Amino acid sequence: MKLSRAGERSLVEIARRICRRGPRVRVGIGDDAAAIDIDDRYLIATTDMLAAGTHFPPGTTPEQMGCKAVVANLSDLAAMGAEPLGLIFSVALPRRFEVSFVERLVKSMDATARKHGTYVVGGDLDESEEVTISGAAFGLAGRRELLRRSGARDGDLVAVTGKLGAASAGLKILLKKLPATGYRKLVQAQLEPTARVREGRVLARSGSVTAAIDVTDGLASNLWQLARESKVGVVIERERVPEHPLVGRFAVHHKFNLDDFVLFGGEDFELLFTVRSGGWLNVRRSLKRLGTAATVIGRVERGHGVYIRSAGRLRPLPDRGYEHFR
Amino acid sequence: MKLSRAGERSLVEIARRICRRGPRVRVGIGDDAAAIDIDDRYLIATTDMLAAGTHFPPGTTPEQMGCKAVVANLSDLAAMGAEPLGLIFSVALPRRFEVSFVERLVKSMDATARKHGTYVVGGDLDESEEVTISGAAFGLAGRRELLRRSGARDGDLVAVTGKLGAASAGLKILLKKLPATGYRKLVQAQLEPTARVREGRVLARSGSVTAAIDVTDGLASNLWQLARESKVGVVIERERVPEHPLVGRFAVHHKFNLDDFVLFGGEDFELLFTVRSGGWLNVRRSLKRLGTAATVIGRVERGHGVYIRSAGRLRPLPDRGYEHFR
Repeated sequence: MKLSRAGERSLVEIARRICRRGPRVRVGIGDDAAAIDIDDRYLIATTDMLAAGTHFPPGTTPEQMGCKAVVANLSDLAAMGAEPLGLIFSVALPRRFEVSFVERLVKSMDATARKHGTYVVGGDLDESEEVTISGAAFGLAGRRELLRRSGARDGDLVAVTGKLGAASAGLKILLKKLPATGYRKLVQAQLEPTARVREGRVLARSGSVTAAIDVTDGLASNLWQLARESKVGVVIERERVPEHPLVGRFAVHHKFNLDDFVLFGGEDFELLFTVRSGGWLNVRRSLKRLGTAATVIGRVERGHGVYIRSAGRLRPLPDRGYEHFR
Repeated sequence: MKLSRAGERSLVEIARRICRRGPRVRVGIGDDAAAIDIDDRYLIATTDMLAAGTHFPPGTTPEQMGCKAVVANLSDLAAMGAEPLGLIFSVALPRRFEVSFVERLVKSMDATARKHGTYVVGGDLDESEEVTISGAAFGLAGRRELLRRSGARDGDLVAVTGKLGAASAGLKILLKKLPATGYRKLVQAQLEPTARVREGRVLARSGSVTAAIDVTDGLASNLWQLARESKVGVVIERERVPEHPLVGRFAVHHKFNLDDFVLFGGEDFELLFTVRSGGWLNVRRSLKRLGTAATVIGRVERGHGVYIRSAGRLRPLPDRGYEHFR
């Protein structure tokens, strides 16, 4: 079978089946990041590759590429609850590019890493036909702090930080060359995202968050991943899903389906998590201290699958991934 | 200036200048790997990207790609003296590829990692026009164990593990489509290399090795890097440089310049190191216990630059890098 037909999930399953799990490996292939036992805590490590043809819409500046590469990697650490230690990057660029491209890219990587409380500590530079930026981020988490995809339990609340839909709406503006007037924040969400690193630490330390994942593939797809890994069902309320304030207007304006951004649009880099109901108010309060809103959007139930209640009717939520744009 | 004219070294300098060094970062951009303070030791992290057009000669199998990607990353850890904790990979492949390609690649990565005493713990899969494999390896080193490029001192001996020249001679066979009869070991050195992980640990624990680097860019280029980072001069004896037993015959047979393989050919993944003369015999003995030969090829001197003595005459050794083949 060709890769084009196989789908990412089945390929991850293949890798998970093949790779022997080392004795110190607590979390291996298939979560947001790996966790390895060192002394009395975990080293958390993750990698994320961004290629021009898939992840950088036409017109993306080197600064924006650097920002997004840093954020994509830090967001995976955040979803594990880790405190970042550093980032390393392998960058492949066409030979015809100017040296100033590298300067602008690296400056932005450095600035974005520092904005998130960490540093770029190493890298590798290569040639290629298209811009390819592969990053790895590593960090530490305490023994009781690890956030996995697989810990959600019957009765937990399902919650999400921030608002959804902006990054994918921004991508639509860029790809369809729509006027950005009034919608600059959407474009900015696509090109200059933020990773929820401090929020991930708050969730990890709360003692009541049972599972977490970052919203990169879209809310629906990430809910499915949580539900599958935790072997539970999830019911969410459409009316409670927090939408970026500009997305509704944008969808009406251009006659797009709002759900395509809010439920199925990726790259918002928010944290989707489950929390024991008794811990929710504390978690919400701690996040608020960081200036970050969080919203309960549903509940974990026995069974399996992801369902959405909208206008009083319950229906299955399709497991449709965000396709980037290649 | 275009990247094609800039050279890797100047680009590394740009990145080193731009990136702020974090408070816990002991070794940042510019060495084989980064070192970050955690508790009473160092987390060592490195990344290496291999692209089909630059690193995999035509006909390279998925198994060989997996092997080389693992070895390239572990070799950087070895050069820092680190004990590996794990590897993560971002792999980008054309959509038209078969799923079996992924299976073969991942199986080989898993087997090669385990052969070196470590594991593949995570990854990311993407689409691209050409096969691109970006790895990151991380490990631990004790406080007094860190091998850097910058520690060589006047009077130290310069030594290298194993024999040189095989991998680049093997590449020549593949690129020029020469008959491999009698030279299969050279081709194998190119396609299925080994990283000197245990040897790196021996050097790190010896207490007398002052600097190290892995021979990936060619002996000459790697000597220059050591000399520059350590702010010393180096004199090596051409007659002492250990050559792979088949390389001399191969060069004569096809009228190639032997030095192009032994002095300027890369990807042998041997360890080049400097050692205090009083510690040499112990280091050699410890390496021998692993079944690995090591040879003194020269000496560190005050001053700067790299010189080679051949047939009684001393001359400067050109700082010529190994060009892969794009």
